[in-house]
Amino acid sequence: MVVYIRRRGAGGSRPATRLPTNEVRACSVLSQLVLSLLQYVWSRAHGNRGIRARIYPFPSIHRSLLRHALPCAPNSDRQYCSAVILGARFLKFGWGAAGTGIMATPRPENVGILALEIYFPTSFISQEELEVHDGVGKGKYTIGLGQDRLGFCTDCEDVISMSLTVVKSLFEKYGVSPSSIGRLEVGSETVIDKSKSIKTNLMELFDDSGNGDVEGVDSTNACYGGTAALFNCINWVESTGWDGRYGLVVAADVAVYAEGPARPTGGAGAVAMLIGPNAPIVMERSYTASQMAHAYDFYKPVLASEYPVVDGKLTTYCFMKALDLCYRRFAEKFQKKEGRTFSLQDVDHVVCHSPYNKLVQKSFARLVYNDFLQSPSLVDEEAAAKLQAYSHLSHDESLVDRDLEKNAQVVAKKKYDEKVGATTLLPKSIGNMYCASLYAGLVTLIHNKGESLLGNRLLLFSYGSGLASSIFSFKVRKGEAPFSISAIAERLNIASKLDSRVQVTAENFVKAMHLGETRYGAKDFVPSSSIKELRAGTYYLTQVDDKYRRYYARKPAVESIESSPVANGVAVA
Amino acid sequence: MVVYIRRRGAGGSRPATRLPTNEVRACSVLSQLVLSLLQYVWSRAHGNRGIRARIYPFPSIHRSLLRHALPCAPNSDRQYCSAVILGARFLKFGWGAAGTGIMATPRPENVGILALEIYFPTSFISQEELEVHDGVGKGKYTIGLGQDRLGFCTDCEDVISMSLTVVKSLFEKYGVSPSSIGRLEVGSETVIDKSKSIKTNLMELFDDSGNGDVEGVDSTNACYGGTAALFNCINWVESTGWDGRYGLVVAADVAVYAEGPARPTGGAGAVAMLIGPNAPIVMERSYTASQMAHAYDFYKPVLASEYPVVDGKLTTYCFMKALDLCYRRFAEKFQKKEGRTFSLQDVDHVVCHSPYNKLVQKSFARLVYNDFLQSPSLVDEEAAAKLQAYSHLSHDESLVDRDLEKNAQVVAKKKYDEKVGATTLLPKSIGNMYCASLYAGLVTLIHNKGESLLGNRLLLFSYGSGLASSIFSFKVRKGEAPFSISAIAERLNIASKLDSRVQVTAENFVKAMHLGETRYGAKDFVPSSSIKELRAGTYYLTQVDDKYRRYYARKPAVESIESSPVANGVAVA
Repeated sequence: MVVYIRRRGAGGSRPATRLPTNEVRACSVLSQLVLSLLQYVWSRAHGNRGIRARIYPFPSIHRSLLRHALPCAPNSDRQYCSAVILGARFLKFGWGAAGTGIMATPRPENVGILALEIYFPTSFISQEELEVHDGVGKGKYTIGLGQDRLGFCTDCEDVISMSLTVVKSLFEKYGVSPSSIGRLEVGSETVIDKSKSIKTNLMELFDDSGNGDVEGVDSTNACYGGTAALFNCINWVESTGWDGRYGLVVAADVAVYAEGPARPTGGAGAVAMLIGPNAPIVMERSYTASQMAHAYDFYKPVLASEYPVVDGKLTTYCFMKALDLCYRRFAEKFQKKEGRTFSLQDVDHVVCHSPYNKLVQKSFARLVYNDFLQSPSLVDEEAAAKLQAYSHLSHDESLVDRDLEKNAQVVAKKKYDEKVGATTLLPKSIGNMYCASLYAGLVTLIHNKGESLLGNRLLLFSYGSGLASSIFSFKVRKGEAPFSISAIAERLNIASKLDSRVQVTAENFVKAMHLGETRYGAKDFVPSSSIKELRAGTYYLTQVDDKYRRYYARKPAVESIESSPVANGVAVA
Repeated sequence: MVVYIRRRGAGGSRPATRLPTNEVRACSVLSQLVLSLLQYVWSRAHGNRGIRARIYPFPSIHRSLLRHALPCAPNSDRQYCSAVILGARFLKFGWGAAGTGIMATPRPENVGILALEIYFPTSFISQEELEVHDGVGKGKYTIGLGQDRLGFCTDCEDVISMSLTVVKSLFEKYGVSPSSIGRLEVGSETVIDKSKSIKTNLMELFDDSGNGDVEGVDSTNACYGGTAALFNCINWVESTGWDGRYGLVVAADVAVYAEGPARPTGGAGAVAMLIGPNAPIVMERSYTASQMAHAYDFYKPVLASEYPVVDGKLTTYCFMKALDLCYRRFAEKFQKKEGRTFSLQDVDHVVCHSPYNKLVQKSFARLVYNDFLQSPSLVDEEAAAKLQAYSHLSHDESLVDRDLEKNAQVVAKKKYDEKVGATTLLPKSIGNMYCASLYAGLVTLIHNKGESLLGNRLLLFSYGSGLASSIFSFKVRKGEAPFSISAIAERLNIASKLDSRVQVTAENFVKAMHLGETRYGAKDFVPSSSIKELRAGTYYLTQVDDKYRRYYARKPAVESIESSPVANGVAVA
């Protein structure tokens, strides 16, 4: 006997959950027993507060059993019967053969990231060369900021083209059909249009499928938008609005700065994440801790310019303070739920938003300092001894104490290498990708560690100026094919992506920035950059017409010989 | 005996759910019986797929009972015990006195809108006068567009000040403490800053409470952002990320147009919605149907200007097509779940996004036409006879057939008055509020109908160009004090808000628009408009400094004599 319990809304798009036959057999007699009991209790309590369940037509014998057991008729108007779902979920009822069963609305489990894909531009400059070009001291960018290379878009790429590329690539690599997507949302602070969301541009990838029933728009707050979109998408899967289809989150940005000290912290990239239950990378949603506040540390009030206004000192202060508050709140929630103290000992890897790598080093050191403040026993003896000198500082004092900052990094160094080292390759090689930065760190970790992450807890810190920040955690599990950690690691194809990049001179980078300034917010132009260096399957901007409408085409993917030039515009360019 | 079952994560912020004593007494013996049974079943099935529950320390007697019943120790590391929650939820166990109990994670029920507040500027012009001023035919705006008045901001108000006002007002009217808010998100397309979310500005209202753990940022896609925020917030309450606190959604916009035919469709306003379970306005989340697509019908690519680019003909076409697709999908989902055909007969009131009232009239007529297409029996005989003439049209033809458009409105008129008439006052009196428009319609309905809405189903159509659109429904129920329909209706105080407005001449309106053009994106200025006409408790802009930082103050509320000038900026103005 094969027994199915259909998940609500799964419809035809996903197979029903197949239960082991022996379990069902073991319970089949008991189920009737429990139903009788429930019938009595139901009639006493008669509340409607239980877990909601919709009863769908059963084969007559089971229907009559149900009618007998419960004082509400199957299929009656929105009658939610706690009792049935209680019995069904626990006893794993299997009344009836394939295709019949209970449509229940308990939350799906192990909701998280099923698959990831990353895109970053092929053009890059060396930070070492930029140091020379900018006439700054040797090591200012490479050691001072901790950055190796900086990736950037030429004028034939933008946040929309990168998002198109990364979504299409994820669809192709995992054989995901656009019609299986029920939600798609974008986190970005790269504003090409103040009203029309990037998500709507991506809907052209859905045209052939006829699927327009795809919730979600764009989430905005500096580098935090991707995290907001991720939380939203996971919440959706856990809500009664979920219809069994996948969610898809895109975090994408172009980070460019005016000439000056912030310019070497630029970058560009896009990460796509497929969201659903039974994921290999499961969010521990209930531990999530946030810090939101009003601050003018980094913002974009100059509307006609792509460049932000940055108060460098304030933003580092805000960043570290938010990190502290998030970490403490996370630890509190963990302790409340797990009944024991939380520290970095409970974490295998820490992924941190990375405007530049030096800030990641400082952030991790700050977490060690937080552990020490909670209890010196949570850090090693040497660290405890060294940090003791700063234990008298007030919170605000500790945030601006350069000596503490330096020494905390020294004592945290070994643990940093162990818990953070494997997350830094892409952020150091591409630069800040704003919303995508944190997830580029996660991608790097999976690329480096693959299946060895199984069972690990990952701690992530997301920060967006203004400010919005959260600390949250993932647990890594095996997942179900094709969505396994090893499959993701392999399909990310990071080494080849990095190898295929093309180094540009610092002079040409500056020229590209100048060109970008004239292109931003402009109309009626055709990009002047060559698409020669773009990887196969990359979308690129072909034209912005006199009504500011943007058109895109795709460089043929290697896998399929035929070109698939999906244009993104009212009229196809 | 008083018995509590604590909701997970509610902590100290919300009282535990108090159960009627008699119910618990009735179940207390049974609970032990069921536990014994569950013990046996648990040992057989031993799966971990049930509804998740965390067991918290019980008084010893109950703890030992539990230990006996279940092969997992209370408080053990992430042991989720289906059995306990099964028993607890259904039987409403009450083991132990106040403060002990089960922390469970089944979804909360009846999630929706607990309370609403609206703010709109005091300044308005008469559309009749604007017709004269613009030298257009009499009735072009009042009958052609169906609009009566147009509200607008002077240069001392903006989307941030309106959002501050509406949130603070909701807090005060319902005695909601900022620390009881766990999520706050804003839907808006009025971009003052391309990176910093409006939500972060609102966080200053939370400063005194010390509560920064407030998820959510801004959602963006034209007039749809508020709906996206609403869905996100409801999903959050239904997710494992919910911690028992309220969600808060703000939909706010300033709609202004360049001189020309679109200018009379401007407006401004903000709506705040408190979200939680046991709400009087419950979203039927699983019916929600969306249509998302790529279109350039209305967009804002001219970054330095507050005005959009509009393709009037295309946007009406996109709007109506999206309405059709959403409505059909909604009907399909309804039918799938309820087992019967859906039509307007299942709906008591229809609230439609209202750029101008004429489009609402057309939209409702279109729904009647859709019902007719599904089955002529779903509309009255006269309507069926008249619409028969258009049944041969293809979908695309029907969207551009002016004759059908006109006649559908004629046959729908009676039903329009019945089902839509009570939703139009504010949208007609203020104009388009973009994200807030739809919810101003909902506010109007509650203001007009109050408690007579009990048991009603409301159907809402949200549309944002670009495009994103959804149809979704609410069921109105009694709710729990202070969150009842009658309380909301009373506290909205619509009549007094409308009465306290000040009419401005068309000339002065045009001057205000000119001034706005110079203020948009500007720095280093102090608003020149008087705050004399602002209602008590209204926030206003006091200064934009040389770093584009904005500062706000509050006009003292009538209720409290002392001024509460919460400034919104790094330095207080």
